[in-house]
Amino acid sequence: MTTSSPPIGRLYGVGLGPGDPDLLTVKAVKILKAAPVVAYFAKKGRRGQARAILESWLSPASTELALLYPMTTERHFQDPVYVETLGAFYANAAEEIAGHLSAGRDVALVCEGDPLFYGSFMHLYVRLKDRFCVEVVPGVTGMSGCWSAAKLPITWGDDVLSVLPGTLGGPDLARLLGACDAAIIIKLGANLGKVRAAILEAGRSSAAIYVEHGTQAAERIIPLDEKTDDLAPYFSMILIPGEGRRP
Amino acid sequence: MTTSSPPIGRLYGVGLGPGDPDLLTVKAVKILKAAPVVAYFAKKGRRGQARAILESWLSPASTELALLYPMTTERHFQDPVYVETLGAFYANAAEEIAGHLSAGRDVALVCEGDPLFYGSFMHLYVRLKDRFCVEVVPGVTGMSGCWSAAKLPITWGDDVLSVLPGTLGGPDLARLLGACDAAIIIKLGANLGKVRAAILEAGRSSAAIYVEHGTQAAERIIPLDEKTDDLAPYFSMILIPGEGRRP
Repeated sequence: MTTSSPPIGRLYGVGLGPGDPDLLTVKAVKILKAAPVVAYFAKKGRRGQARAILESWLSPASTELALLYPMTTERHFQDPVYVETLGAFYANAAEEIAGHLSAGRDVALVCEGDPLFYGSFMHLYVRLKDRFCVEVVPGVTGMSGCWSAAKLPITWGDDVLSVLPGTLGGPDLARLLGACDAAIIIKLGANLGKVRAAILEAGRSSAAIYVEHGTQAAERIIPLDEKTDDLAPYFSMILIPGEGRRP
Repeated sequence: MTTSSPPIGRLYGVGLGPGDPDLLTVKAVKILKAAPVVAYFAKKGRRGQARAILESWLSPASTELALLYPMTTERHFQDPVYVETLGAFYANAAEEIAGHLSAGRDVALVCEGDPLFYGSFMHLYVRLKDRFCVEVVPGVTGMSGCWSAAKLPITWGDDVLSVLPGTLGGPDLARLLGACDAAIIIKLGANLGKVRAAILEAGRSSAAIYVEHGTQAAERIIPLDEKTDDLAPYFSMILIPGEGRRP
């Protein structure tokens, strides 16, 4: 006599979009409503933005699994303590999810924006993809949410768009800004002063739009030139539209 | 005695996402179900991809307005005949929509992918935005759909992503490919041979993934090195992932 083990669960990487809960996709909603386990990232001691977006869509029957970052921007990402601490965090989180999957429970691991575009999901995906069946559900990116909120056509015709992390050095930023038509500068936070200087150096200041909390209640959209301080949330961004051909 | 005119309608620019009808957002579905007029682009003589995605979501009560491109890629975009013909087409389409809005009917003008990211919507938006109230609903971009279908993490940490139209010249493409970490090359079609040569020149061939009909029934995903012909739909694309930091 043999006892059959339960079928292995499937991992879903689900994009939650830019903030407005109505900007989830129909597919994401279907998966969230059916998933026995819904996992999300948050910072230790906080509820987090992903959980806030989920509020409208979680099924009461789902088990919530909060994956709590021990740190985010307190240490530099090249600091060995940061690398080691985050590495251990991702390894533990992957094993926690693996436990549910091995027990036959599907897990929806959600992610703000799009899971494979600078998403935390990727760190667990690379640790689980060879052992489990994974499906990725794309989401509306934060940048799409921001340029739509700003009603700013971002790329026309043959425009080259570059997405530039504000964590790059000032000279690199200025050089890259000079080589593209449209640009999105992400990960602002404490980098805003340096980013502003690079935009000025590249001569692109007059078209730059600053957006924080795009598509959310606290949304704020102003020309960068009118933002007089250098205080910015990490997930705020600057949009510089292309000016390509248009009949 | 005065007769009041009806309130002016509102224009919605609605992103339809990459192809799978379940990748519309909840917000897009709500607007489509309520809109008295749903407008979409197609090529003259064809039903078009936007209309195919709409099939699941159109309300029987909505009036359909097909905006039929007189040409797309038959002439070069710098050919004066192309510029004049397309300009007249957009002007007429804008006036057709303006007629509905002025009569008090909301219009949902849909667009594959995201409306403000290389979207046809933008050509009507710039012609209507000063006369009517416009709301833009972002969509999942074609590129998000493609890298999710390929299960390819596209950007990590400080990676710079560039979106490069295949319509650019070969030397420009090779130079730009050398300056970014991750790249998406869009608008392939007849440009694939040139694009392939530029990728080879930039030394990035081994990581390049070719995707056509991403998220749709005819989806095909293969390493570029294994694609032996240069036949590609215009909306196919090549993905080159970044290799940035990951704890």
